[in-house]
Amino acid sequence: MEQRYEFNKSLDTLTQEIIIMGSLVEKNITRAIDALANQSLEIMKEVIETENTIDQMELDIEKNCISLLATQQPMAKDLRKIGAALKIITDLERMGDYAENIAKVTKRIGDEELIKPLIDIPHMAQLTQGMVHYALDAYVKENKEQAYQLGENDDKVDHLHNQVFRELLVLMMENPSTINQATQLLFVSRSLERIADHATNIGERVIFLVSGERVKIND
Amino acid sequence: MEQRYEFNKSLDTLTQEIIIMGSLVEKNITRAIDALANQSLEIMKEVIETENTIDQMELDIEKNCISLLATQQPMAKDLRKIGAALKIITDLERMGDYAENIAKVTKRIGDEELIKPLIDIPHMAQLTQGMVHYALDAYVKENKEQAYQLGENDDKVDHLHNQVFRELLVLMMENPSTINQATQLLFVSRSLERIADHATNIGERVIFLVSGERVKIND
Repeated sequence: MEQRYEFNKSLDTLTQEIIIMGSLVEKNITRAIDALANQSLEIMKEVIETENTIDQMELDIEKNCISLLATQQPMAKDLRKIGAALKIITDLERMGDYAENIAKVTKRIGDEELIKPLIDIPHMAQLTQGMVHYALDAYVKENKEQAYQLGENDDKVDHLHNQVFRELLVLMMENPSTINQATQLLFVSRSLERIADHATNIGERVIFLVSGERVKIND
Repeated sequence: MEQRYEFNKSLDTLTQEIIIMGSLVEKNITRAIDALANQSLEIMKEVIETENTIDQMELDIEKNCISLLATQQPMAKDLRKIGAALKIITDLERMGDYAENIAKVTKRIGDEELIKPLIDIPHMAQLTQGMVHYALDAYVKENKEQAYQLGENDDKVDHLHNQVFRELLVLMMENPSTINQATQLLFVSRSLERIADHATNIGERVIFLVSGERVKIND
């Protein structure tokens, strides 16, 4: 009985750690775009520092998961919960990488004037950041319906990415001097689209956790 | 004693499965570039089919790992070995995604003549495919030195990516009609560079497995 109590406490701690890691990732998605929009190397550096914390958290949480699995012999649902945790932190870490890579574009663009005002890209960032939040909330609440709803926003992000992609292509064709920066912005847009995919992965994990079914929310 | 024997047999099976998954990923990296170079939708379809098998293998191996952890209560080194397996399959699955995405570029380029002969890109593919092989071999042999050597080839792939990137930029600036295809090829080059990073991740895992140290082979 007491052992079960301890185990549940460990699971709660695990969930808390994932929430904290997720909030750092959310923050870094927003800040990476801030760095870019404000052409601020200062903000870029903050993002890189936070990314180091995110990486460290992944290692720590992974260690906790594996030690829980190996020492507690959890069954069925608990096993899936910890398995989900292991995968979710990998997705979060990958999102963190993308956010860092976006921030680093700031340096590559430097002082050069932006070739177009950033409108769709910050909008994409806001949507993806919201998806990360929503996906982790679905995990905490073990809410399958909420997980499925991620598909809608993933569609929106995909749509915006295609739009940005087309606009940048046109811009490059009309004015070859924009090519260098435009390819950087393409990369940013693509990275946001990938972050949204990872949030959707988390949603799929939640569905598996709750129902045992492997589904693709959005293909 | 017998239990230990069974456990070792399970670990061997796990390693075998990872090797098979890895060989499918290797094959798909090569085939994705074949699809592109030969502008073959047929080969593209083969890559997509193999990618489905890779995805399924990831799920199966993951299940086996978690069940081993939960039922066998492995200690120290065995724990790290299974932990490494869980991470390695995630890296392999991600590489599979990249290979599939590269293959899909074939459809986007269609019958349009290639804007430049593919030389560096197939070379990058060959190097990255070799890295995957070498990384998994280091895992099987638990060979730390071999894992460290991945850094050299990762440098080569990075270097080639930068070269391809610059060449394509110049091409686009000189001839805006190449922009559409050039951005697709940029994406292919970037994907190969990411696959090499994932192979390097596996190397870092092997070093952790053997020595317990967290290192960055190549930063």
